[in-house]
Parts: sequence; structure tokens; C-alpha cells
Amino acid sequence: MPRQTQIGLMSHAELVSEHETQNANYAKLKTEKLTLDITRGKPSPEQLDLSKDLLSLPGVEDYRDGSGVDVRNYGGLHGLPELRAIFGELLGIPVDNLLAGNNASLELMHDVIVFAMLHGTADSPRRWVDEPVRKFLCPAPGYDRHFAITEALGFEMIPIPMGHAGPDVHAIAELVAADPTIKGLWAVPNYSNPTGVTFSEEVVRELVSMPTAAADFRLIWDNAYAVHPLTDTADPVLDVLGLAAAAGNPNRPLVFASTSKITFAGAGVSFIGASKANLDWYLKYAAKKSIGPDKVNQLRHVRFFGDADGVRAHMQKHRAILEPKFQLVLRILEDRLGASKVASWTEPKGGYFISLDVLEGTASRVVTLAKEAGIALTPAGASFPYGKDPEDKNIRIAPSFPKLEELEKAMDGLATCVLFAATEKLLAAGK
Amino acid sequence: MPRQTQIGLMSHAELVSEHETQNANYAKLKTEKLTLDITRGKPSPEQLDLSKDLLSLPGVEDYRDGSGVDVRNYGGLHGLPELRAIFGELLGIPVDNLLAGNNASLELMHDVIVFAMLHGTADSPRRWVDEPVRKFLCPAPGYDRHFAITEALGFEMIPIPMGHAGPDVHAIAELVAADPTIKGLWAVPNYSNPTGVTFSEEVVRELVSMPTAAADFRLIWDNAYAVHPLTDTADPVLDVLGLAAAAGNPNRPLVFASTSKITFAGAGVSFIGASKANLDWYLKYAAKKSIGPDKVNQLRHVRFFGDADGVRAHMQKHRAILEPKFQLVLRILEDRLGASKVASWTEPKGGYFISLDVLEGTASRVVTLAKEAGIALTPAGASFPYGKDPEDKNIRIAPSFPKLEELEKAMDGLATCVLFAATEKLLAAGK
Repeated sequence: MPRQTQIGLMSHAELVSEHETQNANYAKLKTEKLTLDITRGKPSPEQLDLSKDLLSLPGVEDYRDGSGVDVRNYGGLHGLPELRAIFGELLGIPVDNLLAGNNASLELMHDVIVFAMLHGTADSPRRWVDEPVRKFLCPAPGYDRHFAITEALGFEMIPIPMGHAGPDVHAIAELVAADPTIKGLWAVPNYSNPTGVTFSEEVVRELVSMPTAAADFRLIWDNAYAVHPLTDTADPVLDVLGLAAAAGNPNRPLVFASTSKITFAGAGVSFIGASKANLDWYLKYAAKKSIGPDKVNQLRHVRFFGDADGVRAHMQKHRAILEPKFQLVLRILEDRLGASKVASWTEPKGGYFISLDVLEGTASRVVTLAKEAGIALTPAGASFPYGKDPEDKNIRIAPSFPKLEELEKAMDGLATCVLFAATEKLLAAGK
Repeated sequence: MPRQTQIGLMSHAELVSEHETQNANYAKLKTEKLTLDITRGKPSPEQLDLSKDLLSLPGVEDYRDGSGVDVRNYGGLHGLPELRAIFGELLGIPVDNLLAGNNASLELMHDVIVFAMLHGTADSPRRWVDEPVRKFLCPAPGYDRHFAITEALGFEMIPIPMGHAGPDVHAIAELVAADPTIKGLWAVPNYSNPTGVTFSEEVVRELVSMPTAAADFRLIWDNAYAVHPLTDTADPVLDVLGLAAAAGNPNRPLVFASTSKITFAGAGVSFIGASKANLDWYLKYAAKKSIGPDKVNQLRHVRFFGDADGVRAHMQKHRAILEPKFQLVLRILEDRLGASKVASWTEPKGGYFISLDVLEGTASRVVTLAKEAGIALTPAGASFPYGKDPEDKNIRIAPSFPKLEELEKAMDGLATCVLFAATEKLLAAGK
């Protein structure tokens, strides 16, 4: 009989032997004195080089947009029409319903929540600060920076399980129908962070049409990875604004996007798309904080892309760099962890992350082991509200930044830590 | 006996005759069908051209700051150290106490007030939203966008008279000593908008040291025109942070500045300077809204200026363009309105504005008359809290944007409107 490779089915003696093997592997790993980082979804230098022409654009004599506006001077809260047209096409949003902003869509989302706190939304009976209880739905695993906003502002965050076609809409429908203190849902509809899941049309239709006890329930629709496929056929970008309007809830979704993972991370341009009522509401308060976004940087991006096809062609260059990294991660996970059955992972068709589930109760230990071996991972639980993964099993892998050879070492080391932690855990549990 | 030129001393017959003259002048003005705009403090295209090299900077191979950080990628909430060093020297603020931000210092000020609303300041007993009454002191005439922030957030705004050395510190001291609901003061310490007044050292020392009933009283110190002299010797930039610390109130002032009127308006870089406790407080909440400012634009500005002397030299070029415009405005005011004694105005040594006081009760009428003659002025009262000038006499003149010949026509037309409105008013009053 061949030796068992599925760790959960091993005899005690096999498990002891396997643990000794992994212990030795881990000891060897530590001697390599690695300093590797797969924590955050940062573009690699090679990806940033794709946009290097931006560094000398628009050029000393080029400072007027298509309507003749001098982009070097004050004014224009909406952002450049030409830039909004390019991304309106990509996001499926009419130019009139899309504004272009500064370097961070996170800031636009933060604005929306903060303005709702201080003034209420266009549909709110009162300011959100005046609600004795405020709750927000958080598909989990999800994006830690989303959850950080609602945590800092005192929302009670309710985790919603993520499935293969999006968050659990039945759970959501039941909650929002009954509870008027639930004010919104965080969503990354295409190639979600970190699961890679794209919401199905059915899920999107449910989300925009389900009855909500709160008249001012909002979908914070962060389409950060709308144009980031890793396959020939990109997942469709659904017209969430149109679907919501057709369902009689035009003000429910607010769409966000940016070029942080298209051009330069933190030096790109951002977008907010919404109904006219929502944009009027947004602009009323945005006008208090700024005379307008950096139009020179917007013109720079218009010149760089040319048109929507320019963006699509540019994203294929990103894909050519990213795809081998994702394939490498998936190959190592399969080679090192496939037979053991102590881990499972997503195989994303786009976006920036692979979500790894290790043996329940070992994710924190894996991250600690990896750290001690010089491999920096996002803290376990980071993808959950309050940073707490109730099953302590999820680890977010960001393959974009390291070079292939570094990524290989980091993933191989991570696999060792996963196996070591799993055998350790099972032995401690008396297996 | 010569005919009286001082309108207030004219006989009825002289006044009727003068009114007929001005009526005719105004009728003639309207036939010219002007379309001139002296509303806002916008740099002229000629001024913007001074920074045109920025439009191709930093250059395709230049993307690392002095410490080797790739400015094209995420990270670094503090902003580039080299940029902070340049403006730290100009603002008299240690680099560690100065952060560099995005394109709008207004946004940084808005952040500070909003964070205080939602979380309280580092010294607040409670969040400002939880204060049943909130008040803010507004030196007037002052900057309308300052007042708009506190108005939108429900502060009761208390106007403070502006004198020749700053706001009336005796009035302020009396108010803040007695009233814990007064949470701050808007201030433009150098070449104030719109009066051009620079706060004296005595005024600054008073402001940072006076006892306040509120432990969390804040000076929102908008040093927008710190490096914008129109004379050979610039007014000194006082070390408000150091003076406040020495007075035992290190957290009272927060200093703001930007390059909107140095390089490109709305496409420059901004700064916030404060005590360590204030910056820690600011960063804690700023980290929720952004991963960091646009560092590429910050590097672009570092390359453009080189050092603080580079900024000073650059500002002399601005001065060469602005000074003739200010001189023209002052000459026309003197020529057309000097003898009449129905108006007075400031003679600023820097900044962007001339503040014109016309006959009490006629500012709105002057603005309407000018508008009907094709000359756009800032709405009367705009420089006062709630847009209400209690004496209806103040008009803000922004000479920077128009060409000299347009400015001459606009000012000549404005003078006609001032005289026409004055004679009209005096006749209506039964003079």
C-alpha cells in the first residue's frame, strides 16, 4: 500500500513522520535567510515601466483639453470629458454619469461615506452620524481598506460569505429587508480582492433590486479590476447603474475605478460613476473640499491612452507580465499542496490576488512561520472585517510585485509553512 | 470757488450733475459690450507658462526620490522628503513637521475639520459632531472657501474685524476665553485674502498664547501666499508652530500651503505642517482615505524647483507679471476714485487681491451694474461669513488673470459703476 499523502487521512505514525519532514524543510528554509514580500497588490517595476511615457507627458506645449480648457488653471469639478469618455466606454457608464478625480478611488469612496455621515445621502431621513446604530455588509474575504473605512467610522460590520458568483445574495436579502440600520455593502464586482470572483449577472440583478429596509442603502461598487483579465475573454462589466435604474433603485450603486493598477499606483486618475441625483449630491459636498482634480494628470492620461482600445491594448501588456506569475503560484500550490488536501485556493481569471485557504486554525501560524523565515505575507485575517478570520484559515497572496524567481522561492517557502503548520496542528489536536 | 469733487460734500445740485455725468458714463460703458472677468484669483496664462517645463518632467527615466523610492508605486503618506525640505525651508517648518499632499491645500484643511467632526482632535473631549453648538471665528473680509467649509458643517461663524496687522486679537481673546464652543479661527497670515494684510508678530504671539475655553481650539493657518511678495523685501514667515509650542499650545496651529499659485493652479502640490501629535492624529485618519499622495507630481516639482532658492527665483518671475497689474489697478482707483472719497482700498505688498470698500450700502449695486456692463466681479459679500457683508461695501478685486488692457477696461468700468452707485444712493437718501 502506498504511503498516504492526504494529510487528514494519515495514521499517527505517518503524521509524525510527515511533521518531521516538514520540520526539516522549514529549518532548511530558515537557513536561506530570505527577504521576500508578497503582502500587497503592488504592480512590479516592469509593469510600471509600461507607462513610462507618462513621465514626460503631456509635453511643454500641450495643456488644453478638447474643448480648449487650459488644464493648468483652476476649475472643473467633473474632470476632463475626454478622459471620462474613455473610461465611460470601459466601465459601461455614460460620460454624464462619470466624474474623473485625483489619484485614489479609495478617497472617493471615503468621501461618499463621510459625506453620508455628515449630511446624509440624497435618500437619507437623517445624517448617518445621527443613526444610533449603523451597519455595513462586508463580503469576506474582501478588501481590508474598505473595511478599515467603515470600522473607523463606527459601523458594525457584518461579514457575508463569498461564493463562486459573488456574495451570498440570499443572506444579504434577508438582512437588508429586515434591518434599516444596514446602510450599504462593499463590493468588488469584477475579479474580487482577494478571491478573484466576478459577480454573476443574477447576483448583480438581485443586489440592485432587492427590497431594503433602509431607503438610503448603498452599493459601494469598487470596480478596481474591471479591465484586468488574465484570459483572452474578459468577464463582462455589467451596467450596474442601468440595472439599478431599471429596478427602480437608481441611487443605490456608486461605481468606483482608478488607473492605479493600469498606469502608476498612487499617481493615476480615479473615477466615480452614479445617478445624476447621486453625482449632484456628491459634487455639492466635494465642492467644499477642492476647486477640482488635477486636470494636467488627467490630460496626461488622455494623451497616453488615446482611447478605450488604447487602455485595452495596454492591459494586455500587463497580462503578459502577470499571467506567468499567477501560473507559477498555482503550479507551486498544486505541486506542493495538491495531494495533501490541507489547502484550497482560487484560480482567478483576472485581478491581483490568489486567495489561499489553509487548514482551519493555522493561517496565523503560517504567517508567523513565514515571517520568521523572511517571507512577508499579509497578516492572517486581513481580508475579514476587524481583521478577524473566524476560521483562521485565509491567506491572501499577491503575486504581482516580486520577480518570478523570488515569487517561486516565496511560494515554495509558504507551502512548507502551510504543511508544517498543518501537521503541527493535527498532532497537537491528538491526531 | 472750484467745483466740489468729494462726493459726500457736494451740494444737491452738484450731486445731481455728478449723477448725470456718471449715468452717461455708465450708458457709454454698456455700449462697449465688454466681457471681462476679475472674479477669482486665477493665475494668468503668462504665469502658468513660467512652469511649462513641469509638463514634460520628471522625464521617462526619472522616477526615484533621493532615498531610492520608486515614486510610481504605492506608499508613503508623508510625501517626498526632498519636497518637504524645500517648502520646510520656505515656511520655516522642520521637515518632520511637514507633510506633502495632493493638489489642494483646501482639501487638507477640509480633512482636518472633517476628522475633528468625526473623531475629535487630539485634544478634544468629544467628537465635534457631538457638540450641540460649534462656532468658528472668521476674520472678515476673508476667504470665501474657508467660510464655506465651516458653513456646510453647521458651525456658527463669528466675523472678526480685520485690521492693518491682522484680525482684532482683543475681540478674539475675549470671545475664546469665555466660550468653549468656539473651536477655531480661519487665518491667512501672509498677504491675506483679500486685504493683503500680513499678521504682525505681536498678533501671532497673541493668537498662539491666549487662553481658550476650548482645549481643542485650532488656528487653521492657511499660508497660501507665504512666498508671494510684490516688493523686494518679503514679509517674514513667522514660526507659528515654534511660537505656539513655546507658549504651551503646540497643537493649536495647523499650517497649510500649496503651489497652486506657484506652479499650476489645481495641479500643484500641497502641504500641512503641525506638531507631531497633530500630524500623528492627521495621518491616523488620512490613512483611511488614501494610500498616499501623488509622488510623481511631487518629484516633478522637486526637479522643477531644485531647492528653496529655485522657488524664490520663480516667484520673482511671477512678481514681474503681477506687479504691473496691481499698479494699474491702484492707479485707476486713485485716478478715478481718489478725489471722490466714496471708496477706499488696500495697497497690498503681496498676495493676489485688492480689497475695495465702496460707499456703504452700494457694493451689491456696483456688482450688478458691472455685470450688466459685462464685467464679472466676485459677488458682493463673498468675503464675509454666509456671504453677507453687513455694511454691503466690500468688493474683492482679483487682478491676476486678465491682460493689462482688459484689466484697465474692467477697472475703469468698475470705477464708473462705483461712482454711479454712490451718487444714486446719496440722491435716493435725500442728499
